[in-house]
Amino acid sequence: MQGKFIVVEGLEGAGKSSAIASLVSHLQAKSISTLTVREPGGTPLAEALRELVKRNWDERVTAETELLLMYASRVQLVENVIRPALAQGKWVIADRHDLSSRAYQGGGRELGDEKLQALKHLVLGDFAPDLTLLLDLDPALGLERARARGDLDRIEQETMAFFERTRARYLEIAAQERSIKVISADQPMGQVHQALINALEAELFGGARG
Amino acid sequence: MQGKFIVVEGLEGAGKSSAIASLVSHLQAKSISTLTVREPGGTPLAEALRELVKRNWDERVTAETELLLMYASRVQLVENVIRPALAQGKWVIADRHDLSSRAYQGGGRELGDEKLQALKHLVLGDFAPDLTLLLDLDPALGLERARARGDLDRIEQETMAFFERTRARYLEIAAQERSIKVISADQPMGQVHQALINALEAELFGGARG
Repeated sequence: MQGKFIVVEGLEGAGKSSAIASLVSHLQAKSISTLTVREPGGTPLAEALRELVKRNWDERVTAETELLLMYASRVQLVENVIRPALAQGKWVIADRHDLSSRAYQGGGRELGDEKLQALKHLVLGDFAPDLTLLLDLDPALGLERARARGDLDRIEQETMAFFERTRARYLEIAAQERSIKVISADQPMGQVHQALINALEAELFGGARG
Repeated sequence: MQGKFIVVEGLEGAGKSSAIASLVSHLQAKSISTLTVREPGGTPLAEALRELVKRNWDERVTAETELLLMYASRVQLVENVIRPALAQGKWVIADRHDLSSRAYQGGGRELGDEKLQALKHLVLGDFAPDLTLLLDLDPALGLERARARGDLDRIEQETMAFFERTRARYLEIAAQERSIKVISADQPMGQVHQALINALEAELFGGARG
């Protein structure tokens, strides 16, 4: 009885954390055992990499280096945490996964989706989420929310054009891949959460809820 | 007036450090400006990655993670240190480079050379050394020397079979690529250094020295 792997994606400030709390609560009410994880991070080595990738360095961090560190963290998390949990029948809900790299490094940093997909297949093969829920939001609005929470890290300090490219790539990929569902994050939180739960029900339980 | 990029490769205990000192001394006697670097490491972020990759973790470090961290460190070093030095006309002498990943992760950890070459091209394109000098040594002998120097790190604690695979992959690749010269490290140090300098002269100055 393999569990399901659900990913919540979106720009900074899109409301991923509260979305995940709402999904977990919904699944637990169905007596489904859940595990939540976040990327980058989630294992001791992956958390150390999270700190390195977010730190402001005195040297330029190349787009390729950032990409490699994101995947190094991801592989540790997948192999040491996510796969074992799924094998135990747990449902894993992740705050970011592969789609973040395709959007941020592939789109925002303009490395291109072909390179991103090639790297993914090299190190993770065909491992993929059962469902990805993309919280779509105008980056100006998202960054305003993120700023209100405190200091911005190295990536969060990027230009608005970077986040516009990231959002555009998120939406381009979502338009092509059936396992990604887009939900507008620019509506009251209760409505966002209801939309998330409707998508979850429709995709993984074979029916929508009202 | 672009500098040359020379790499010294080999198993632990093969004598890379003293080989590099000898090469630098030979080049400086020709009034060539040199820069020595080591992998993994050589920039602030790359040195932080060196520490993470060598550390003994309570979790399994997957072969793919190790590979990604080696490349993350390598890309930082190439882009921020090696390319700028070459552009200034300096000759860069590196203790390990791409061939180490192909031998250790590709051979020792059995990821395969195709995967290794694909990853290299994704993140470094066609950047490559002008000359690689491979110090070949029986791993039993090399490890004995490395152990005599002190504690072994995570990778140095691998099995003898791992190092035998690594050595075999080193030699297989060297047999196929003209820019790699193999020098036996199982001879008196003076003879090893003379062989290195002969190879350097023959390959990069168009003639051998006696």
